[in-house]
Amino acid sequence: MYELIIIGGGPAGMTATVYAARKKINTLLISKDIGGQPLVTANIENYMGYQFIEGPELMQKFEAQIRQFPVEIKNGVEVKNLAQIKNGFTVKTAEEEEFQAKTVIIATGKKPRPLNVPGEEKLRGRGVTYCAICDGPLFAGENVAVIGGGNSALEATDDLIKIASHVYLISRSSLTGDAVIIERVKGAPNLTILLNYQPTAVGGTARVENITVKNLKTREQQDLTVSGIFVEIGLIPNSDLVREIVPLNELGEIKVNCANGTEVPGLFAAGDVTDVPEKQIIVSAGEGAKAALQAHRYLQRLNEAS
Amino acid sequence: MYELIIIGGGPAGMTATVYAARKKINTLLISKDIGGQPLVTANIENYMGYQFIEGPELMQKFEAQIRQFPVEIKNGVEVKNLAQIKNGFTVKTAEEEEFQAKTVIIATGKKPRPLNVPGEEKLRGRGVTYCAICDGPLFAGENVAVIGGGNSALEATDDLIKIASHVYLISRSSLTGDAVIIERVKGAPNLTILLNYQPTAVGGTARVENITVKNLKTREQQDLTVSGIFVEIGLIPNSDLVREIVPLNELGEIKVNCANGTEVPGLFAAGDVTDVPEKQIIVSAGEGAKAALQAHRYLQRLNEAS
Repeated sequence: MYELIIIGGGPAGMTATVYAARKKINTLLISKDIGGQPLVTANIENYMGYQFIEGPELMQKFEAQIRQFPVEIKNGVEVKNLAQIKNGFTVKTAEEEEFQAKTVIIATGKKPRPLNVPGEEKLRGRGVTYCAICDGPLFAGENVAVIGGGNSALEATDDLIKIASHVYLISRSSLTGDAVIIERVKGAPNLTILLNYQPTAVGGTARVENITVKNLKTREQQDLTVSGIFVEIGLIPNSDLVREIVPLNELGEIKVNCANGTEVPGLFAAGDVTDVPEKQIIVSAGEGAKAALQAHRYLQRLNEAS
Repeated sequence: MYELIIIGGGPAGMTATVYAARKKINTLLISKDIGGQPLVTANIENYMGYQFIEGPELMQKFEAQIRQFPVEIKNGVEVKNLAQIKNGFTVKTAEEEEFQAKTVIIATGKKPRPLNVPGEEKLRGRGVTYCAICDGPLFAGENVAVIGGGNSALEATDDLIKIASHVYLISRSSLTGDAVIIERVKGAPNLTILLNYQPTAVGGTARVENITVKNLKTREQQDLTVSGIFVEIGLIPNSDLVREIVPLNELGEIKVNCANGTEVPGLFAAGDVTDVPEKQIIVSAGEGAKAALQAHRYLQRLNEAS
């Protein structure tokens, strides 16, 4: 039985791992993809200590940091089930491997939110993509649409105006990203910004051929000829694992107290999967540290009680 | 009138500055000492992104990051008074300069806790020190005492066993620092660890000559001949500025909600000065980011209301 299982190897999970290892907690880290969300993030300018760094490079540094400790790491492994047992938890993987621990930190992060419009599912991976950094270069010289108005959509737009022939940035409301990024993209000659527009359908047979958008004020619809659609409308928390065990908020995020505890003793959560208001690498890292130190205190109390 | 004044230039205040600047908030940063606590921290092994870095070097990187933005920075300036006014706050410095802002983030951190024993005040700076990294090298070949049992005391001990002739590590209880550091120091031939001992007096005329310690179990006292005393028994929050405005906890820390808000609208706090349970650079940085983003939301609501 481990003292701690950390589920998720993004910034929160990896920071929790370092803090747990330094407390000599007998820890297992299980991750589907060590690095998590920043692996698909290009330009990071707000992680303190680096004026500019690419997401994957920063995550390599995080990974090197966890691997210097004698912590057991299972990478490429998906957790399918989490259950409470006497004195702890059982974690079951997609391959039916089972592990037990006295405490668990959920740091499973988020996944991209789909548009939920006709044609999207059929053409996913055939022009519909959720990762501008991965797939942007495939659309050199073509027309593309970016859906969203936040930092992710703007970063994608900033990348794509240098690659694509023409970029449509389609947002349901005004742009909500950082002012510095908005200024960087607006005025680009090959960019059309459509505010108060919403996609209603993705068209195409073998591949994306167009996107239908609706003007939310006039209710008029129009088709834009594009071969790529970059969906950047936010993320959904990967909280299914604990849906039956702890309360989630209306967004599906795990409710935690200020000390990263859930309603179940010994079960902690950190990072994007929680209801912490900001989804930022530096915030998730801080939350991961807090969760590990809280788990350490909890384990100490268990030892003192026994 | 500024939109935001950030008081304190440690990890929390500098991260808040970067996040505020990226939102184009008209910001003034006032700091007594840009860098804060990490300036007197040697070996940092748990700031994610750097497997090992010295505190001052990491803070130089933070500072370079804030200085790339057009943010006004007043360094070497102490804030003496904070008062609420209509639509915001007035901040007065020790030099009687006055600034106004719609929102304020308090990130003033902590200062070392004194022993509060006879002789300490008289011999402060004459052998009594609160900064092992600053003053350790002055005691090469001499006998010294380190007071405390946490990570700071252990780090100081780890440094001093390489420099001093003999080191006494004096702790009221068992050692509470990270297991990795405890293992690193224990067994050093020139180290005596005195657990359940408490200093009762500092002796010496022009400089420290000895320290009196009491065995907390037998109540017996003894004198140890030392010329240096390194006090590492924790920190006191620099919260006097807001003592009359917002509630503090029993440690004198500013009570904040999970979103870094205080009871006063527009007044936020982040980092070691708050009641956030962990005092860690990565945690303070995360809290600083959260505070700035909350201040941004607050300012947006102000603008929408007016």
